[in-house]
Amino acid sequence: MQSAVDDRDQWPLGTFVDAVETSLRDFVATQQATVDSVGPVYTDAVAELTSFVFRGGKRIRPAFAWTGFLGAGGDPHAAGADAVLDVCSALEFVQACALVHDDIIDASSTRRGFPTVHVTFAERHRTAGWRGNSDKFGESVAILLGDIALCWADDLVRAAALDSATSARLAPVWSAMRTEVLGGQLLDIAVEASGDDSVEAALQIDRYKTAAYTVERPLLIGGTLAGAGPELLEVYSTFGADIGIAFQLRDDLLGVFGDPSVTGKPSGDDLREGKRTVLLAAALDAADERDPATAAALRAGIGTDLSEAAVDDLRAQMIDLGAVDDVERRITTLTDSALAALNASDVTEDAKRRLTAMAYTATRRTS
Amino acid sequence: MQSAVDDRDQWPLGTFVDAVETSLRDFVATQQATVDSVGPVYTDAVAELTSFVFRGGKRIRPAFAWTGFLGAGGDPHAAGADAVLDVCSALEFVQACALVHDDIIDASSTRRGFPTVHVTFAERHRTAGWRGNSDKFGESVAILLGDIALCWADDLVRAAALDSATSARLAPVWSAMRTEVLGGQLLDIAVEASGDDSVEAALQIDRYKTAAYTVERPLLIGGTLAGAGPELLEVYSTFGADIGIAFQLRDDLLGVFGDPSVTGKPSGDDLREGKRTVLLAAALDAADERDPATAAALRAGIGTDLSEAAVDDLRAQMIDLGAVDDVERRITTLTDSALAALNASDVTEDAKRRLTAMAYTATRRTS
Repeated sequence: MQSAVDDRDQWPLGTFVDAVETSLRDFVATQQATVDSVGPVYTDAVAELTSFVFRGGKRIRPAFAWTGFLGAGGDPHAAGADAVLDVCSALEFVQACALVHDDIIDASSTRRGFPTVHVTFAERHRTAGWRGNSDKFGESVAILLGDIALCWADDLVRAAALDSATSARLAPVWSAMRTEVLGGQLLDIAVEASGDDSVEAALQIDRYKTAAYTVERPLLIGGTLAGAGPELLEVYSTFGADIGIAFQLRDDLLGVFGDPSVTGKPSGDDLREGKRTVLLAAALDAADERDPATAAALRAGIGTDLSEAAVDDLRAQMIDLGAVDDVERRITTLTDSALAALNASDVTEDAKRRLTAMAYTATRRTS
Repeated sequence: MQSAVDDRDQWPLGTFVDAVETSLRDFVATQQATVDSVGPVYTDAVAELTSFVFRGGKRIRPAFAWTGFLGAGGDPHAAGADAVLDVCSALEFVQACALVHDDIIDASSTRRGFPTVHVTFAERHRTAGWRGNSDKFGESVAILLGDIALCWADDLVRAAALDSATSARLAPVWSAMRTEVLGGQLLDIAVEASGDDSVEAALQIDRYKTAAYTVERPLLIGGTLAGAGPELLEVYSTFGADIGIAFQLRDDLLGVFGDPSVTGKPSGDDLREGKRTVLLAAALDAADERDPATAAALRAGIGTDLSEAAVDDLRAQMIDLGAVDDVERRITTLTDSALAALNASDVTEDAKRRLTAMAYTATRRTS
């Protein structure tokens, strides 16, 4: 669906993001007639979904998939490369579903600086003075729009019209990516509900909800599309799992210690929401061993409407308990092992440089 | 994925249902390792989803798709017929998502004689004494399980490994089916919220939420898999839209006048829930013209917790206003036009007999 563009093997991120968005726009255009046939209500709702998709920033999953393709020797100028770009872009529809549904599950009111989809439609219902419960209406619309995004992810992969052999190779990887991320989301809410605050539980969530979904599977999708052999795919798997977990661990630190003016969300919100992070689990682990009173105080405070002063106290305790050092060490260890695996591999030199940069961006960022 | 079975062109419904369930079971087995890798929480939740899928009765959508395949001259004994059966079966995963998510949207507590999925997980949360709101937890799990069903529908189609040409033909039909039904669901909640009680709005919902999804698109999927030409597909489209709407109109009558001991749901529930049916719209239309007081009484009563006596009154009014006759006439007209199109077509004689029987079952049933 893409027009030919030169230097696809050297695309800077901005150009790549544009190419992804063109692919998404071209696809949405193919669906417009069907959407419109149902009626203006559907046209309007889908327009809201597509606005949401086009507000999505960094396209990190498509970028890992495309780099995975290049790194395995995929030819970005070959006839089939447009199809590869479409498959990469389709990851953004999966992500749209994940975010829209997650925002219902987490009862989040803002996303990407805008009201979340369910809040938007609740507001419309309220403003129109419609019948029934506005919040319920908003959630219902958001459930359906998330479903559409999920369907469109598959439709875009199908529309890419890969040859049979490639399609057959892709099928199990594409399938596992979606089944895993949904499992990770389920695990997340179950662990939070059950109050399991172990490091192991938090790592298992990171593994499936973030690492496999954000880095590992996208790389494997790209590699598979390039026809990579099992050894290279194994390297992608190691690199992806390690960097993906490190990425989440950095996110956890930013959720507690990040600068709100840089991260764009109130610092300490992870503590107020009671998010089960490795950081928190490590703090509780250490406190259980050395200082049961602090452990009890942490457990009592987490997930409550903490004052700024209380958040500051919890931050100090996490540092004192060595949890921050522990998480920083984990990030370093994971990044080192990922880069070691990458550097010892047959991944192309260009892609090695690119993936190394992406690894640092993911694990050393401040937002 | 199916073992060879004789007489696939003459399968009685029971045997066909068994074949669909074997296809679904075989597919689920291929996903088990991925599911288990995430953890026992996921294994248990997915087991609940698959139980739900296997409780699903008549497999009406796969049956229309398979008949569409046979009717277009598809060879049920050919090498590719197992793949066709897999695609037919995949419709049951789409339906599982539609039902699980619809039950959240409608806040339904029972389905197929069992607690709905969100109620099941709310109960588990309550029984385990977990943290947070049990109902919210149940809905969250049900959102995710519906998503998995939707993904698996696509995964099963992909696993069917159709050849490229067939896959390319199928893509737009498969895509439209899902985009349309989600649009129909959205229209349904929007029409109910806005209070639009016109016949046109009710018919538009029937067209997309039921007819296209239940009969028309399944027939087109089957026909497309058999390589049917545009004329035959046009016949399927006419037949499917007409019978699909007639099916829903019969459902509407049963929802108000059906025998609870046969339908399995309390009669009059459609009136208590305020469902926007053609039946209700026709009654309101007639009342607006002839008897504004009755129109006002109908509008005031619909969607409230009506007593049995009040339900009886509304029933009598709907009969007196001619709405029941109107809907019965519509069913007859639609069935006649569908069968006329079918009989004038090149659909195979066997399939004509079968589709005629299915049309009568769908439009004359008592449950």
